[in-house]
Amino acid sequence: MSQNVKFSHINDQGKANMVDVTEKNVTQRQAVAEGFIKMSKQAFSMLRDNQHAKGDVLSVAQIAGIQGAKKCSELIPLCHPLMLSKVQIEFEILDSTQQVRIQALCKLAGQTGVEMEALTAVSVAALTLFDMCKAVDPLMEIDGIRVLKKQGGKSGDWQVEGMQC
Amino acid sequence: MSQNVKFSHINDQGKANMVDVTEKNVTQRQAVAEGFIKMSKQAFSMLRDNQHAKGDVLSVAQIAGIQGAKKCSELIPLCHPLMLSKVQIEFEILDSTQQVRIQALCKLAGQTGVEMEALTAVSVAALTLFDMCKAVDPLMEIDGIRVLKKQGGKSGDWQVEGMQC
Amino acid sequence: MSQNVKFSHINDQGKANMVDVTEKNVTQRQAVAEGFIKMSKQAFSMLRDNQHAKGDVLSVAQIAGIQGAKKCSELIPLCHPLMLSKVQIEFEILDSTQQVRIQALCKLAGQTGVEMEALTAVSVAALTLFDMCKAVDPLMEIDGIRVLKKQGGKSGDWQVEGMQC
Amino acid sequence: MSQNVKFSHINDQGKANMVDVTEKNVTQRQAVAEGFIKMSKQAFSMLRDNQHAKGDVLSVAQIAGIQGAKKCSELIPLCHPLMLSKVQIEFEILDSTQQVRIQALCKLAGQTGVEMEALTAVSVAALTLFDMCKAVDPLMEIDGIRVLKKQGGKSGDWQVEGMQC
Amino acid sequence: MSQNVKFSHINDQGKANMVDVTEKNVTQRQAVAEGFIKMSKQAFSMLRDNQHAKGDVLSVAQIAGIQGAKKCSELIPLCHPLMLSKVQIEFEILDSTQQVRIQALCKLAGQTGVEMEALTAVSVAALTLFDMCKAVDPLMEIDGIRVLKKQGGKSGDWQVEGMQC
Amino acid sequence: MSQNVKFSHINDQGKANMVDVTEKNVTQRQAVAEGFIKMSKQAFSMLRDNQHAKGDVLSVAQIAGIQGAKKCSELIPLCHPLMLSKVQIEFEILDSTQQVRIQALCKLAGQTGVEMEALTAVSVAALTLFDMCKAVDPLMEIDGIRVLKKQGGKSGDWQVEGMQC
Repeated sequence: MSQNVKFSHINDQGKANMVDVTEKNVTQRQAVAEGFIKMSKQAFSMLRDNQHAKGDVLSVAQIAGIQGAKKCSELIPLCHPLMLSKVQIEFEILDSTQQVRIQALCKLAGQTGVEMEALTAVSVAALTLFDMCKAVDPLMEIDGIRVLKKQGGKSGDWQVEGMQC
Repeated sequence: MSQNVKFSHINDQGKANMVDVTEKNVTQRQAVAEGFIKMSKQAFSMLRDNQHAKGDVLSVAQIAGIQGAKKCSELIPLCHPLMLSKVQIEFEILDSTQQVRIQALCKLAGQTGVEMEALTAVSVAALTLFDMCKAVDPLMEIDGIRVLKKQGGKSGDWQVEGMQC
Repeated sequence: MSQNVKFSHINDQGKANMVDVTEKNVTQRQAVAEGFIKMSKQAFSMLRDNQHAKGDVLSVAQIAGIQGAKKCSELIPLCHPLMLSKVQIEFEILDSTQQVRIQALCKLAGQTGVEMEALTAVSVAALTLFDMCKAVDPLMEIDGIRVLKKQGGKSGDWQVEGMQC
Repeated sequence: MSQNVKFSHINDQGKANMVDVTEKNVTQRQAVAEGFIKMSKQAFSMLRDNQHAKGDVLSVAQIAGIQGAKKCSELIPLCHPLMLSKVQIEFEILDSTQQVRIQALCKLAGQTGVEMEALTAVSVAALTLFDMCKAVDPLMEIDGIRVLKKQGGKSGDWQVEGMQC
Repeated sequence: MSQNVKFSHINDQGKANMVDVTEKNVTQRQAVAEGFIKMSKQAFSMLRDNQHAKGDVLSVAQIAGIQGAKKCSELIPLCHPLMLSKVQIEFEILDSTQQVRIQALCKLAGQTGVEMEALTAVSVAALTLFDMCKAVDPLMEIDGIRVLKKQGGKSGDWQVEGMQC
Repeated sequence: MSQNVKFSHINDQGKANMVDVTEKNVTQRQAVAEGFIKMSKQAFSMLRDNQHAKGDVLSVAQIAGIQGAKKCSELIPLCHPLMLSKVQIEFEILDSTQQVRIQALCKLAGQTGVEMEALTAVSVAALTLFDMCKAVDPLMEIDGIRVLKKQGGKSGDWQVEGMQC
């Protein structure tokens, strides 16, 4: 006799489960995320003075971050495909700590939040900064990637305290 | 004098034609598809006991199937891009026939059906099962890929007789 | 003291800016674009007679153009992801000038126009024609890629004079 | 005190493991795979007579299969990226069983086999055939996807008995 | 009796055929391609002065062109996947004709030429220039996309007369 | 008279420059990278006990990381396409700090290093951990992404002091 055992019976924990958003309302949503990359004095001052051999570090990273946001659902297995209506990447040059701060804003009118898109944009921009500067400093470090603000959707609006974004 | 001949005049059969869904209503739609992979006794019992060298066969196949559904319109030339709101992959272990049965459910609120997405999910999950087990059994066979159920849209709801899904 | 300088202060011109379409209405939109590829007598008559070694030149180019339209937002950094509801590629054989004319129509109900999708479809179809025929004529030239018509959206409908499409 | 537990200690079966081919020789390799799609009399005779509304069923499926082979390592998580040197898709029209048989050949000079690429080509071609004909027959079935022949590499050459390919 | 008819018997012209490069030598190859985009006085002078609202037109187009070259085999159905070792995009501002000239150089050590990659880079850069400037001039035209130079491979080196690149 | 000004004359800093690796030797190369994600007590203990609603957090993240490594050259504009011969992702559960440590190893025989691939694998795995756990803790933070070790290539072998990997 055929003995059919559900996958979940062998390996409950393996059950990757994409949330069903079919019934959720289409609302305007946005999310802001940030991250940092810290580099050596030399790499940092070359970035400030636009002297890295691979070109304009921030321009390339900005475009890579925007493109990265659009690829989120390809990269993160359980993310839903989304039609982003806005992606914005900004950089701040933090002299005192030799860091570049990356901030990404994503927006859409849709059924699910866009914080993963904003985090992906920050991560891809940070990786691109790494790639552009690594010939000078291979020991850079990417830190502090997190969500700062979320608006729209069932869970309501929230914002990390003390942040303006 | 210029003599303009439509492509269709040389080669009518070459005319690939994407259906125009611009005027179709956005409705809730879902589809369920299934497929099977049959393997040798050894490969099958190793799958049951989670001993394949490449890792947890079903977990990897499940994620590949979900990701595959999202890539449907990239793979199938005349499929429309869609925003799936749910993809679910389940496996059944069929001891009597040494088969794994794969079932995929896809959902969205959109202008066109999602049976191709469900079939793509099943196919990519089956191919991944093949890849994970082929070192033990290179002669596996993938069979019985079909649509079991379709809901929503102009053509109405239908279901293969005798199936519960 | 930390001294935070906005990216825009170092390099205003590097600020890639994706237009925010969050508030725009979802309306029916379409665009038509065209382009031309000119080839040698030999390559052209082989195309007419379907004798190129790589296969049916127009069929392959047509499918490539449709697939290309769907990849527009992956290729063009500041394009929004869209759900095209229709892509149509047509060819005309222009004997007097040894050219193939490519025309692409794209449609969707969405928040932004589809002329970049139509232009991308034309470009990818033209590149594919080049690839299929280049063994015979490596000196072909692609010309005249432009938008012929646009409908829907805030900027209103317009059409290049004297065109019917 | 920090207590570091390897992932493998919690969940041995979750360990997805890409085979290390760094030390393997670059050799010429090829693989042949096949699959079948069975359809209703009406859908089948329309395919024979090239009357499906979506266009030339076999041309579109052939190109989709070739493109699918190139996407194999994107679809199958533990496949290595490869540079295929040849992909060939052929169809046979099996009147007695109302089936189309799909055969794919993949070749490369590389460090690992190409049977997954050939199976992916067959699967994507079969899915495309389904998509092109589903308006007429939504109950088609894809069957018999398997590897027929493999050449090159450590495991030696083999071929399913009685096949010529 | 089963009656098996090869696809080629029904539809010879549908036979898309990827060239088999398995036996070709790995040699150093490069190709240079060019193209032009012509715009209105206003759009052109805004490009010169870096005043387009979407940002630094040439920076974005340059990166898009590089990324486009890497996507060539995804876009052009019968192109082989390649590992480009160099992509370079340059622009010239042609005041007398209100055009931007785009030049792309691609290099690799491989079994097949890279002119399609160079042409794809030019095309995607041109499309991106169009996208960045279209709010000011929706009637721009892309012209003169062709191969200027090819080195390496069986067909020998050649160069369009009178060009230095 | 036509007056041709090189792009570099208007905007030197915009010049994105992919390193030319055509002449570099094919050698065996590998890189190891790490990163961390810190979460709340609740999210962390649910991860340990495999109770997150989206499924087996570490399995999904492991596969996403492997797939992410293969997408590196699509994400990072100036990275070369590579044929990775091995990607390995490992996790450590750090109880004392409520962190998961992610380590990625990438290998290939090629003309350029694989540290960007390893960093991308770590980043995508970290983002996936975030996605799997964010319903419980939306304030997680990703930190400490860096290269630990690099072997092969012109720049010689190096390793962050005190690390074993």
